[in-house]
Amino acid sequence: MSTIELKGYSGEAYKFLSEAKASIGDMVRIEKDGEVYEGGLMPRSESGDDQHIVIKLRSGYNIGVKITPTSKIERTGTGAKPTFTSTSQPTSRKGLERIDIISTGGTIASRVDYRTGAVQPALSATDLYSAVPELSELADITAHILYSEFSENIAPRHWVGMAEKISEVISAGTAGVVVCHGTDTMAYTSAALSFMLRDLPVPVVLVGSQRSSDRPSSDAATNLMGAVAVASKAPFAEVAVAMHGDFSDKAVTIHRGTKVRKCHTSGRYAFRSVNSLPLAKYDLQNASLEILDQNYVQRDRNRKLDLRTSLEERVFLIKFYPGMSDGPIDWAIDQGYCGIVIEGTGLGHVSKNLQASIAKAIQSGILVVMTSQCVWGRVNMSVYTTGRDLISLGVIPLEDMLPETALVKMMWVLGQTKDPEAAKKILLKNLAGEFSQRTVLND
Amino acid sequence: MSTIELKGYSGEAYKFLSEAKASIGDMVRIEKDGEVYEGGLMPRSESGDDQHIVIKLRSGYNIGVKITPTSKIERTGTGAKPTFTSTSQPTSRKGLERIDIISTGGTIASRVDYRTGAVQPALSATDLYSAVPELSELADITAHILYSEFSENIAPRHWVGMAEKISEVISAGTAGVVVCHGTDTMAYTSAALSFMLRDLPVPVVLVGSQRSSDRPSSDAATNLMGAVAVASKAPFAEVAVAMHGDFSDKAVTIHRGTKVRKCHTSGRYAFRSVNSLPLAKYDLQNASLEILDQNYVQRDRNRKLDLRTSLEERVFLIKFYPGMSDGPIDWAIDQGYCGIVIEGTGLGHVSKNLQASIAKAIQSGILVVMTSQCVWGRVNMSVYTTGRDLISLGVIPLEDMLPETALVKMMWVLGQTKDPEAAKKILLKNLAGEFSQRTVLND
Repeated sequence: MSTIELKGYSGEAYKFLSEAKASIGDMVRIEKDGEVYEGGLMPRSESGDDQHIVIKLRSGYNIGVKITPTSKIERTGTGAKPTFTSTSQPTSRKGLERIDIISTGGTIASRVDYRTGAVQPALSATDLYSAVPELSELADITAHILYSEFSENIAPRHWVGMAEKISEVISAGTAGVVVCHGTDTMAYTSAALSFMLRDLPVPVVLVGSQRSSDRPSSDAATNLMGAVAVASKAPFAEVAVAMHGDFSDKAVTIHRGTKVRKCHTSGRYAFRSVNSLPLAKYDLQNASLEILDQNYVQRDRNRKLDLRTSLEERVFLIKFYPGMSDGPIDWAIDQGYCGIVIEGTGLGHVSKNLQASIAKAIQSGILVVMTSQCVWGRVNMSVYTTGRDLISLGVIPLEDMLPETALVKMMWVLGQTKDPEAAKKILLKNLAGEFSQRTVLND
Repeated sequence: MSTIELKGYSGEAYKFLSEAKASIGDMVRIEKDGEVYEGGLMPRSESGDDQHIVIKLRSGYNIGVKITPTSKIERTGTGAKPTFTSTSQPTSRKGLERIDIISTGGTIASRVDYRTGAVQPALSATDLYSAVPELSELADITAHILYSEFSENIAPRHWVGMAEKISEVISAGTAGVVVCHGTDTMAYTSAALSFMLRDLPVPVVLVGSQRSSDRPSSDAATNLMGAVAVASKAPFAEVAVAMHGDFSDKAVTIHRGTKVRKCHTSGRYAFRSVNSLPLAKYDLQNASLEILDQNYVQRDRNRKLDLRTSLEERVFLIKFYPGMSDGPIDWAIDQGYCGIVIEGTGLGHVSKNLQASIAKAIQSGILVVMTSQCVWGRVNMSVYTTGRDLISLGVIPLEDMLPETALVKMMWVLGQTKDPEAAKKILLKNLAGEFSQRTVLND
């Protein structure tokens, strides 16, 4: 028995498995405290303890079973050994729609090879089928390795690259696009693609994972299955984010690209639609898609994509806080910035001492918009004197738009036009569901 | 009948009320669709419609009743006319604890006079008793008008003024302090007072209202009653925030001053404890206090307050975003800033292109700390290369501390010492519950 076959296991867990002659990839059956767990034996990461055995259930979900003195294990079948040597595409699946998966990096792309435990920087289609065999039943997948970046390093130029690649695969006739992305800045990217991909004919679904696939609680495989299913099946043609949605592990929530936010540093349920309902929910057990917001753009493969990737990067996001000086605003004016997004307090306020600099910025042609650091809710600058004063200076209130979406939209709008009046008009137009008609109480 | 007696009413509502000879302040009984509503007739704001009548129920809560052709009204009693001419304190309530209410401004202070509809800039004790008569059963109130500011204009110097005033009333023997404050920056102020008021002997409870008291849904009176009850009864001596807690209108939630955040621009339930349970819940119907976090600092009137108000205001809060240049960090170095709080992505990340400037800042003696823009969760900079790189540059991860609390604590710590090592030590010490032992899944 070579060492790779129990990669990551040590101590008690190693002894328990080697006595049953079980290797990574084998089907095993574990009995413990009257419960039975059956699935494929998975490798552990090097940082794992020596108490838990990780198996992949038929549902595609991984669980960790803590072994006890009374636990029993049986090897019930031989696992198909992973083949990660070939980079060729597998043969086309007849009768299934073509889905393109574009890998940009992040936990989902670097770790999804959970049967060998090897850290892969990106995914070929072969890797994907080996790692998540269920994908072969969902779609005929073409995989592309575009970037291999942690998402904190994804910059506006990468958004352009992604939009161009998506345009390319749409021209080649794809039925839907999945973009594997790190979770940290996924919501900024989904907003950027929402504006860049005008008149989208098919869905573009971003997907990531909050837990790497060598952890028992990984959401990598389930999120990916959900994303591929939505890209091939969904009736909408919008940019969306597919992520673990609740505590039950049975559903993936599909969020509109302009209304989603990462709201937890580490939880699997970190992604939330803010000030709107999610677009849909995909049930992994029944393979069914439930539409939650009927007001969507219909899929139409005959629609001609209008690709608009010009961006103006000189946009500054400022979060207001008590004691903040007007220095950062003056700095932005001096540096020739074109736009400032303020994350004000409450309904859209900042302190009086910033008014002079804000006025100066607007007079010098900078577009200044207001959002709220509250995260939930809508700015309303007509309730209090402070808001009315800021409006009279020319500050533009952005309703219930998220500050992150506002930043990205400003970059995009100022890439389309530098005329302040024309820019303001586009900014206030609801282009990709970034404004909600009314605030949904969803927190 | 003078016009003031139906202030704010017009059209149908005015006709309906004047036919019943009802005036503002009178007790009325409205029958509508089989339901009966009884309470004091309240004034409307100028922006109100002509369909609703606002009454104050015995519970202290206001409701708006939409009149219909079949509605009936009866005047059941004469209201005690408000007396807002005297500025003298009312006579001391025997047998009740002394509670000091310090008014700093905000919606709760400027609008709580809901029986006349007059906009008062601040509150005398007489005003308070007239507006919320229930207070006289809860405590013997001494009222102080310290500021009259919208909270977006509350600056660090006001935190110092509040801490000094609180120290003064504690020296005078108060049993608890209530601070009326605008909601926009209330959480920043509560964090500041949490650090400035060391060895607090009695509770300090900040209170505000999300809806002004001339609106049917106002939370002003109920929040104030909850705050006064907590200040006089609570077994803990901590800085807390008392705000409307749920949809039922029956409870006020008491949040720890360092763990609370305004999470909605306009909802009454806007305040949430983040990464921790609230301290307590006050039930308005039963006048009972339920402690939710048993791990609190006990009230002890013999404890000697240690007032430490020194602050260093040159602390910069930067929210990272894709495409951000290193310019703002270089600007802070040039301006002689002493501290930088970064709101990074996810577990505490920023893009590679900022590393050189961050290193330069730290080398020049600036304290740089990391928090997360996710709001919920804990930073963990040992999981990915990006985090480890930032740690090796000297960036200090602040666990589950809120960015707003981190900013305020940095100002306070750097006011106590300028030595980076000594400052780092105080920064990482849990002084006022700003760190939680483990992340509570409370979103």
